[in-house]
Amino acid sequence: MNKKPLILVTNDDGINAPGIRNLIETMNEIGEVVVVAPDSPQSAMGHAITINSTLHCTEIKVNDGTHLEYSCSGTPADCVKLAVNEILQRKPDLCVSGINHGSNSSINVIYSGTMSAALEAGIEGIQAIGFSLLDYRWSADFSAIKNYVKKITLSALVNKIPSNVVLNVNFPKLKVNQINGIKICRQAKAYWVEEFDKRTNPMGLDYYWLTGKFINEDKGEDTDEWALANGYISIVPVKFDLTAHHVIQNLNTWDFEN
Amino acid sequence: MNKKPLILVTNDDGINAPGIRNLIETMNEIGEVVVVAPDSPQSAMGHAITINSTLHCTEIKVNDGTHLEYSCSGTPADCVKLAVNEILQRKPDLCVSGINHGSNSSINVIYSGTMSAALEAGIEGIQAIGFSLLDYRWSADFSAIKNYVKKITLSALVNKIPSNVVLNVNFPKLKVNQINGIKICRQAKAYWVEEFDKRTNPMGLDYYWLTGKFINEDKGEDTDEWALANGYISIVPVKFDLTAHHVIQNLNTWDFEN
Repeated sequence: MNKKPLILVTNDDGINAPGIRNLIETMNEIGEVVVVAPDSPQSAMGHAITINSTLHCTEIKVNDGTHLEYSCSGTPADCVKLAVNEILQRKPDLCVSGINHGSNSSINVIYSGTMSAALEAGIEGIQAIGFSLLDYRWSADFSAIKNYVKKITLSALVNKIPSNVVLNVNFPKLKVNQINGIKICRQAKAYWVEEFDKRTNPMGLDYYWLTGKFINEDKGEDTDEWALANGYISIVPVKFDLTAHHVIQNLNTWDFEN
Repeated sequence: MNKKPLILVTNDDGINAPGIRNLIETMNEIGEVVVVAPDSPQSAMGHAITINSTLHCTEIKVNDGTHLEYSCSGTPADCVKLAVNEILQRKPDLCVSGINHGSNSSINVIYSGTMSAALEAGIEGIQAIGFSLLDYRWSADFSAIKNYVKKITLSALVNKIPSNVVLNVNFPKLKVNQINGIKICRQAKAYWVEEFDKRTNPMGLDYYWLTGKFINEDKGEDTDEWALANGYISIVPVKFDLTAHHVIQNLNTWDFEN
């Protein structure tokens, strides 16, 4: 019998979020699980890391299971760095992040703490998957997607995720019999139009809340947004070489001496 | 005579950093300048945005010049969003971020607050450039690169940066006569090996400082690391479509039902 895979579990909603509790439960069915996750919500933290203040990390036990759990004061990327360098005895076979309460499809990948953890693992040469459910509520129902999370994880372990790539998996908010299957997609070309809610505090000082509207003008049927809107689970392979190789030739024609 | 371009200036080291003061001075020679920058250092913030707390923004005047300046409580990405939506009367012609005190070459682009501001502008359809000098010190000397910052900016305004791409410009720490010129590059495949400095606080609780060593195993002579090590200024075109298009075909062969 093969040795069980070592799976690092993290997220950005914090170690007590229902999303990560569901993910731990599923991962316990697959491998040896170690959880290193933020002690408080870190949503929209992007790929932040903690370099100017200290990090704390405490072993805890939130609920039953064979896994180990550590609560960390840092960002999702910090959690992965700490886990790999200070907590785990060997390099994990897989890092899974989530299940995020809310979408990380399309351009949201760039703001996402969930995906920053997966990317940090990828940069360190560890296979990684970020899981997100299109339901922002704390009471989100993860039962419909449990089997898909397991299938996708097992498939990644068997097929191996290509190197320098991590998977961004988003689930539509649907009942299990309404889900049409899994689609491999590209990131839709979409963006947020901000709407700042300007208010005045009791001392007369103006302040803002950031809100916004998501605009998807990408009509492609190969995008994550199309898949999710049509009842599919989207999987986008994501890379961290951000070079726009296709424009290098153009830039080489620029004359900087003009 | 053409209307002067409207240039938004921001950074991640904070509005009082010498790097942004130098950038403002140069941009005042080129266009109409509005500064919206963080009120305190935001290094390594990645692409964080502020969604769970309030943002403050105050008009200030740090030093002389025709530009307007606003100090903002948020992250670099917040500053761009606030500028575009609440402060500027029209869409800027260009957003410049920096000059960062320290490198944003190679994988550092992903942790960089400087580049997150440029990327945020790019996402919003604004031409954008991030500038960084390979000198972490507050006392870094920006005089050797002043003319290059101006040349690159003017060249971008004339040639137009390709859409959905922003420029990541890094300057070697050299005297002006030691700089060999400008190279268009790809992001080197490099990474950090973390070294956590574990300590115990006066209450007996363990804590960590994140430190690390930068490892570049990429031998290519077309990378930003090669250019910088050989006395060149590196320009990497950076995109925010993170899709790893080249592996989609491979992923489509996976059987999720096994």
